[in-house]
Amino acid sequence: MVLASPRNPLNIGAAARAMSNFGFSQLRVVNPYEVAFREARSAIGAGAVMEAAVDCRSVAEAVADCTLVVGTTALGHRELQHRLWRLPYGARLIRRRLAQGSVALLFGSEKYGLSNDDLGHCHWLMRIPTGTEHESMNLGQAVAVCLYELAREPEGAVRPERKRHAAAAELERITELLAELLRESGYVNPRTAVSTLEKLRRLVRRLDLSPRDAEIWLGMLRQLLWKQRA
Amino acid sequence: MVLASPRNPLNIGAAARAMSNFGFSQLRVVNPYEVAFREARSAIGAGAVMEAAVDCRSVAEAVADCTLVVGTTALGHRELQHRLWRLPYGARLIRRRLAQGSVALLFGSEKYGLSNDDLGHCHWLMRIPTGTEHESMNLGQAVAVCLYELAREPEGAVRPERKRHAAAAELERITELLAELLRESGYVNPRTAVSTLEKLRRLVRRLDLSPRDAEIWLGMLRQLLWKQRA
Repeated sequence: MVLASPRNPLNIGAAARAMSNFGFSQLRVVNPYEVAFREARSAIGAGAVMEAAVDCRSVAEAVADCTLVVGTTALGHRELQHRLWRLPYGARLIRRRLAQGSVALLFGSEKYGLSNDDLGHCHWLMRIPTGTEHESMNLGQAVAVCLYELAREPEGAVRPERKRHAAAAELERITELLAELLRESGYVNPRTAVSTLEKLRRLVRRLDLSPRDAEIWLGMLRQLLWKQRA
Repeated sequence: MVLASPRNPLNIGAAARAMSNFGFSQLRVVNPYEVAFREARSAIGAGAVMEAAVDCRSVAEAVADCTLVVGTTALGHRELQHRLWRLPYGARLIRRRLAQGSVALLFGSEKYGLSNDDLGHCHWLMRIPTGTEHESMNLGQAVAVCLYELAREPEGAVRPERKRHAAAAELERITELLAELLRESGYVNPRTAVSTLEKLRRLVRRLDLSPRDAEIWLGMLRQLLWKQRA
């Protein structure tokens, strides 16, 4: 569970409590409002999940060891062409992947949701099917609903997926090398460099690479960069 | 949705927000801590559900027009012999009943849950399947999870139940008459009168009366009471 830039200590605590309720343990908090993180930690009855929560500097750092990163959203962010699943189906996909590697569930800040930069790290998005009139949920409640759905089906009822997937850290390394290569080649317009990086990030996640293929890609890109600089 | 004796304005507000998210509208609050109810009402962004929330003096009053009353609990209250269903199945039963009458979903106070008196008004109980280590959920999150599950399946996917059921107010009237009758007959030990009333209440709910049968029972009890007093 990754919370990006949460502001309210009550929400951080509520997320930790829901994790404890449904048997999840690893909470990572990216750039929290410092006072909020401290308050949530020191709250009475904070519990083991909150005590073990890790403060990360970036989403990339928080999801580095995960082979699947799923963003949650109230809206469809079509800009970056993510696939968007309703929670009941998305949770099924996640459970199939949990058998073979860590999955990060990424929640944005209370006010702004996930930024484009956050979204770039996601393989796909998931939304809680709320009514159209009042879509946006409270963060602590959204976390509880998602984890409930993930824990809803008894273990073993879901057939695990066979294919293995590269960890987010490898995908990010590929993204960086590709960006470097393109920038130095003049492909990237410096004025739009930021959005290009976000698009590249998405492009690489859509490849759905195996760990072995990720290594091959890394080797190729290093070679190309070396050649280009020679 | 009925909240019995809630203490925290944030929880009342969170319940109202989840209702709005999932398309539910009637919030009734029984004996709230007054300051909390006022604060929740006047909170910024309280929304239409909170504004329309009704303050009731008793659970009986809050559920009077409902044909099914479902209590939520973290534990199994076996004392009063309620049937206890896990949320996914319980929600299915509720959806089948929603087609033909109002259903009350009853939540207890943050600290103590549902009292024996509250429980007496329930036809059956439902629990959110949390882990065994940390069972008790935050009230606002528990409400969100229950309503999510209720709204989870598309409408029409559930076959409505045919049988019609008596409203809670009629059942309560039967309970009262039966209690009066038994008390005046010397059946009820004055020292255990309170727990006897709770047991009678349960007994009457277990009958699962149709509106027509409820009327017949009311007639019979009135006649018996008249005879006994003659």
